[in-house]
Amino acid sequence: MASRRQAARFLSQFKLRPQLASRRSLSTFPSSTSSSSTFAPWARYAGLAAFGLAASLPLTYAMAVTEPLSMDSLSLAERDQQQKKNEGVTETSPMRLRMEKFIKEQQEQIVKALEEVDGTKFRKDEWQRKEGGGGITCCLQDGKVFEKAGVGVSVVYGTLPKPAILKMSANHKNIAPDGEVPESLEFFAAGLSLIVHPKNPMAPTVHLNYRYFETAKPDGSSGAWWFGGGSDLTPSYLFDEDAIQFHRDLKEVCDKHNKDYYPRFKKWCDEYFYNKHRGEARGIGGIFFDDLDETVSDKENTFAFIQDSLKSFIPTYVPIVLKRKDMPFTEAEKEWQQIRRGKYVEFNLVHDRGTSFGLNTPGARVESILMSMPLTASWRYMHEPEPGSREARLVEILQNPKEWV
Amino acid sequence: MASRRQAARFLSQFKLRPQLASRRSLSTFPSSTSSSSTFAPWARYAGLAAFGLAASLPLTYAMAVTEPLSMDSLSLAERDQQQKKNEGVTETSPMRLRMEKFIKEQQEQIVKALEEVDGTKFRKDEWQRKEGGGGITCCLQDGKVFEKAGVGVSVVYGTLPKPAILKMSANHKNIAPDGEVPESLEFFAAGLSLIVHPKNPMAPTVHLNYRYFETAKPDGSSGAWWFGGGSDLTPSYLFDEDAIQFHRDLKEVCDKHNKDYYPRFKKWCDEYFYNKHRGEARGIGGIFFDDLDETVSDKENTFAFIQDSLKSFIPTYVPIVLKRKDMPFTEAEKEWQQIRRGKYVEFNLVHDRGTSFGLNTPGARVESILMSMPLTASWRYMHEPEPGSREARLVEILQNPKEWV
Repeated sequence: MASRRQAARFLSQFKLRPQLASRRSLSTFPSSTSSSSTFAPWARYAGLAAFGLAASLPLTYAMAVTEPLSMDSLSLAERDQQQKKNEGVTETSPMRLRMEKFIKEQQEQIVKALEEVDGTKFRKDEWQRKEGGGGITCCLQDGKVFEKAGVGVSVVYGTLPKPAILKMSANHKNIAPDGEVPESLEFFAAGLSLIVHPKNPMAPTVHLNYRYFETAKPDGSSGAWWFGGGSDLTPSYLFDEDAIQFHRDLKEVCDKHNKDYYPRFKKWCDEYFYNKHRGEARGIGGIFFDDLDETVSDKENTFAFIQDSLKSFIPTYVPIVLKRKDMPFTEAEKEWQQIRRGKYVEFNLVHDRGTSFGLNTPGARVESILMSMPLTASWRYMHEPEPGSREARLVEILQNPKEWV
Repeated sequence: MASRRQAARFLSQFKLRPQLASRRSLSTFPSSTSSSSTFAPWARYAGLAAFGLAASLPLTYAMAVTEPLSMDSLSLAERDQQQKKNEGVTETSPMRLRMEKFIKEQQEQIVKALEEVDGTKFRKDEWQRKEGGGGITCCLQDGKVFEKAGVGVSVVYGTLPKPAILKMSANHKNIAPDGEVPESLEFFAAGLSLIVHPKNPMAPTVHLNYRYFETAKPDGSSGAWWFGGGSDLTPSYLFDEDAIQFHRDLKEVCDKHNKDYYPRFKKWCDEYFYNKHRGEARGIGGIFFDDLDETVSDKENTFAFIQDSLKSFIPTYVPIVLKRKDMPFTEAEKEWQQIRRGKYVEFNLVHDRGTSFGLNTPGARVESILMSMPLTASWRYMHEPEPGSREARLVEILQNPKEWV
């Protein structure tokens, strides 16, 4: 088929088949690692709302220094800044710098790949947080293929107050390993988030987010750390082959690192992206996880998993879009897409903890957070799909999430 | 002008100039009555989300009785049912029955008036709560004049658990006047809510809600009671004369009852309907209030105020719509309306406590709650109106709410 050849050409051009990193060790999940674990907003959602939250955390950290300081008296942000300048970022650099470098490279590649598909350039906004860190928000809207595509990176340096440290220590013993909870702790958070809403109702919406969080020990070395993330698909019209391919690709990446990852993260995804008030999932699944720390695997292996997962985005999603973007559709099918978009908006504004935390945080870069909104959406009172229709089958599957592989 | 004559004809046909009830007494507000008073969700938002919450409260009450019971052993709902059947509803009936009758009559009149303006009939859905009470949801969508218009009435009988009673007693001493908080209390809540989104971007969206809440004493007589409500206007294009007329009409109704009402309720409205994350009000104002109880005025006078306020809706809003519905507009102006609609959606889903409480309550009639959504809405990344434009002036006023009268 032409679209398959087109996809192959496209991918070879970008050399984007995932380069799976080698798995160095395996570990199983402790039973305490759970999606319903204690709410610790500063850390948990810093990455979830990575589009714009980075501009927003209500924590103070003064970047302004007026005279040279010795390394010891520098903040984490200042030290990282100096190290980047003097030595660059290598495999021996702190994970903070490696993660930042990696997600910025990936952002560029993803933006380039989506521009190639659409034939339209992204708008790119770089912004700074006065408290430390900053971000890059890339957005394409009303393109030829994409109604809206947003790819955002954010990097946050800040200080956790004691109550936040206390909450986090429930899930992450390493925050206060000797049991003594300090009055405050410097932290670092970095993440890449993306949402793509294609125009053609046959092409599915996709969302992805990968993030890293770390606290500094009082002596400045790394304290607690964890990764989180995932990727999920939201079609208006379901093509089983797309759902199967999407999940097979994710499973392949997961299995390479830990055979327990995929089944656990697929379940977590179905549970997290759930429009409770509608009694249906937002989309047809994918993977979602949080709190991947030393109790699960070591830092290097987990970073390798995160890298593989993020790198798999283009070769997983782009072929699906290429296959669907030029399919014929009726006005009624476009209308159904708009109604599904409405439910996407409902999830993001009512249930998504990252969005809600971001929007309720003074000074957030709201336009980056709400870049996830579709360009257009619709709400029709009591709209019900015809029994037995494709629309009705989608709703059935959203009500009863399915194992695709 | 033709539109003014049209409005006059329209109103005379419906004989809808407000019949202001006489004010029997005056009282000033105690300083404790505040929009930021303690959150007591069962009561506070039963009416705010009156579109559909009535189907939803997680409180149990068995309507089913298999054999005749004496009056004493009947629940509030059963007693009210019997009284309606045997005696009808008169001026000496309990406020529960009078409020229910009044809002149902008003719903009919408002639906009739809006049908007349649009030339399209509303869809009418009657529904029952298995726990007691029910509602009527009337919706018109994709009409000639209105993109969406919803007028909903709900009546709820239920039981408050002790923690809810405790919370409410902070604002309403009469719930437990002797200081002894019972394990549970029967309650009643009834309200009318409406939202109208016109098609023409020159015609403003309007929202209105009036509600009554009451608890029963253990002996079945009325315990605590209060009214709440308000009405507010959300234009995409601001015509000062409309804003002034809307507020003048509301002020006239308020002043007739208590000179303190209008300034206080306008402020409360600007504060409540505030899109915090955008730093702007949802609309250009109106009135909003809650907790109007015996500390403010007596029940009869407060009911008279509620009646006048609700009755003033048609003569206040319909002339504005008639003046604007056929005005010419450009595609760009329609697009601006869609962007404003997006911000309306944001308020309703992120900040409106009634909607959020409703959506998070298992078993809610979601379609009634979300009837408030516009038919269509749009989100454009970093959209900024041209400096000095009409769009920019609207945003300025939303950022700095204005006194219109």
